[in-house]
Amino acid sequence: MEHCLTTTDLTIDEIQGILADAEHFINGKMWKPKNKVFIANLFFENSTRTKCSFEVAERRLGLDIIPFEVSTSSVSKGETLYDTVKTLEAIGVQLAVIRHNENCYFDQLIGKTNSAIINAGDGCGHHPTQSLLDLLTIKQEFGSFKGLKVAIVGDLRHSRVARSNAESLNRLGANVIFSGPEIWFDQDMAQHGQYVSIHKAVKEADVIMLLRVQHERHEGGRWDAEKYHKAFGLTLEREKMMKKGSIIMHPAPVNRGVEIADSLVECGRSRIFKQMQNGVFIRMAVLKRIIEQFERGERNGNHHQKWSIAY
Amino acid sequence: MEHCLTTTDLTIDEIQGILADAEHFINGKMWKPKNKVFIANLFFENSTRTKCSFEVAERRLGLDIIPFEVSTSSVSKGETLYDTVKTLEAIGVQLAVIRHNENCYFDQLIGKTNSAIINAGDGCGHHPTQSLLDLLTIKQEFGSFKGLKVAIVGDLRHSRVARSNAESLNRLGANVIFSGPEIWFDQDMAQHGQYVSIHKAVKEADVIMLLRVQHERHEGGRWDAEKYHKAFGLTLEREKMMKKGSIIMHPAPVNRGVEIADSLVECGRSRIFKQMQNGVFIRMAVLKRIIEQFERGERNGNHHQKWSIAY
Amino acid sequence: MEHCLTTTDLTIDEIQGILADAEHFINGKMWKPKNKVFIANLFFENSTRTKCSFEVAERRLGLDIIPFEVSTSSVSKGETLYDTVKTLEAIGVQLAVIRHNENCYFDQLIGKTNSAIINAGDGCGHHPTQSLLDLLTIKQEFGSFKGLKVAIVGDLRHSRVARSNAESLNRLGANVIFSGPEIWFDQDMAQHGQYVSIHKAVKEADVIMLLRVQHERHEGGRWDAEKYHKAFGLTLEREKMMKKGSIIMHPAPVNRGVEIADSLVECGRSRIFKQMQNGVFIRMAVLKRIIEQFERGERNGNHHQKWSIAY
Repeated sequence: MEHCLTTTDLTIDEIQGILADAEHFINGKMWKPKNKVFIANLFFENSTRTKCSFEVAERRLGLDIIPFEVSTSSVSKGETLYDTVKTLEAIGVQLAVIRHNENCYFDQLIGKTNSAIINAGDGCGHHPTQSLLDLLTIKQEFGSFKGLKVAIVGDLRHSRVARSNAESLNRLGANVIFSGPEIWFDQDMAQHGQYVSIHKAVKEADVIMLLRVQHERHEGGRWDAEKYHKAFGLTLEREKMMKKGSIIMHPAPVNRGVEIADSLVECGRSRIFKQMQNGVFIRMAVLKRIIEQFERGERNGNHHQKWSIAY
Repeated sequence: MEHCLTTTDLTIDEIQGILADAEHFINGKMWKPKNKVFIANLFFENSTRTKCSFEVAERRLGLDIIPFEVSTSSVSKGETLYDTVKTLEAIGVQLAVIRHNENCYFDQLIGKTNSAIINAGDGCGHHPTQSLLDLLTIKQEFGSFKGLKVAIVGDLRHSRVARSNAESLNRLGANVIFSGPEIWFDQDMAQHGQYVSIHKAVKEADVIMLLRVQHERHEGGRWDAEKYHKAFGLTLEREKMMKKGSIIMHPAPVNRGVEIADSLVECGRSRIFKQMQNGVFIRMAVLKRIIEQFERGERNGNHHQKWSIAY
Repeated sequence: MEHCLTTTDLTIDEIQGILADAEHFINGKMWKPKNKVFIANLFFENSTRTKCSFEVAERRLGLDIIPFEVSTSSVSKGETLYDTVKTLEAIGVQLAVIRHNENCYFDQLIGKTNSAIINAGDGCGHHPTQSLLDLLTIKQEFGSFKGLKVAIVGDLRHSRVARSNAESLNRLGANVIFSGPEIWFDQDMAQHGQYVSIHKAVKEADVIMLLRVQHERHEGGRWDAEKYHKAFGLTLEREKMMKKGSIIMHPAPVNRGVEIADSLVECGRSRIFKQMQNGVFIRMAVLKRIIEQFERGERNGNHHQKWSIAY
């Protein structure tokens, strides 16, 4: 694995391999790169979970982390993402973890820079390590994906994981259904699963995967919090209708009382904090795969680049 | 010691133990935790001294520090302090050093999260590591607290250390007097010591503990700098009236020419920079005590939390 | 070497020594300080290249880096640079790398604090590690400076390196010429080299050293991008007129299409990214020299400072 950009890029074997490696890390397995590896975390959008989770994962693997804050970088002098990544690469950074508000920002980097890129979220596009930690959480619970019914509920349009989770879950043998405001359900979603009422989703699903209402990506607040909660949220009443053994997931940050009733965030069915915990181990597994590729000599990020005289 | 929240929580034995450990660190003693310890410094208010001091102390003990900047975290998406701490905990952070503008912010965390909390300043409330470094500085100078006269002078109302320093100094056998704008002296202070004129305070005290005028906490600038300095500041004239062997302290940042004449900040009596130096060793001592409690197995912050299936 | 403030302070022997050390680091030489060294990077102006380059260099040498962000420090409560550096020093920071918008900011620190200072850019003044990495890049290319013709082209007035590069290149035996808007060429420059047309500069130089148009330092946008490019930029046509074997340099960030045509930034003659790469090794060499001076006992930054009782 050279980069980690989208879940769709990953084969079923790669997904299963990453989940297995993450489980090994959970069970105490250690792994360190053979040589010093320099990495930078470039977060052009705010984050607690994803950024800190990568920071912990990188430290557990003994990587050298170069701090980078967008607000105090030359980005504020107009430097482009491409020039920023090229600069870090010249300085010796081999791996860049990037979150950016532009969809597929990585298209301007891949093949043009030598850095390995891990996508930590692009616009409304992808967020592969989030998808992978979601899959791990489901696998830990049910052992397999075959025949599971997974309901993805909420802000389908602005979510980075709805589409890619649906697609991977289908490939892994699960059955996906969607719910939430129907106006956010489109034809692209329809190829991955059916739209159902919130009532049906709650009653039938083994996994209720709630999506965050991304207030910051909406123009004009279409839904007020209370109205959304009543219409599409996981209320106390709806939780009582859930199947025996079914679980609740949410990528967080949670809008408490909107997508889910406040007191359900830490209820027995909730795996919300377990998802965060799994995130560290998934990121370790992804980092390990990419660094192993360096070490096989297929990339030479760490070497002093040679320039030749120009004629 | 599970947390470090207020000086009042600490017994005399605990205080003396921390001071002794800090002295050992000053004299070159080393100590490292047995296992990797992840820590985060959450500063919701600006700081140079306290934050950098913790950063140095943590590195001297070999802890793994997860960078956290409020401005680029999900706090800006409305995430609460509770959810932020729970998130960091899920990710593997065992210890959180927190400065927050809300009095007793820690009440919403203790008993509800598993993280150990070190209070690095809450609103106008407490700042226990500052109190402890003040005590260490006095002890180094005079050997004991018994019978010492300590004058606490200045912005008594908005200070995080006036009350708790007075209370601990009383318990340790010192005599506390207060001075500064009398409007900032209240009944709560009165139980710890008498209000006296600045003239009397300066003449009688073994220790003059100046407090910073917290411009940023006042509504409507009651005092202009020059007027304050003349009325309550440590002027060049007042310093000449100080007792032989008496010392000057200030938690800094100093408003030069307000609480104290510019040229006195680094005069022979001043222990202002020594206080900062002591701060690192006090923080090492506090961190050590809390981590030792992890290691005795009384807390298990570092282990993978188990979730059970919900029925 | 106690500090690194300006290139002019450095003797020819010191410059050659630093360039040689940097080459050794490029060729894989390792060096670590004998004791823990604490360092802080204080960037009062935005930076990607210089800050990250120091961060990599410091990690390669195994230094302990105390994070410092101006925006969340007590600088925002009005603390001065002097008090900030004194504070960090009290806390145990021995070395401060500083970028500040005030010319010769270091005059208020040298001789008054014990910290070693590395100037990472002062106002429109100096930027010695940038000058040194420029010199290294030229030396790698041509082996020697003797008789080389170096054209410094562009925003001569606001550049931190134009003057000091010209001065050092003269001392090293090179021949300097200047070009760009003539209004930015002054008598001070004239002692280091002649002003020539861009046409002549491009045709005669072995090295074209472009300077960034510092939009952020200009009052009133004198030049628009296109006009500047046509008049003084390295256009595609001008590049074709360059001598065989001559090279292009730029301190970056590049305004693509202004100082240089977009497609020339990574052309065969360009050493722009090589300059960045060299920067890490130059900074390692400078840090090593300063730390070696600590270790010879000529400075005692790391020891617990003694305060005596005041009478």
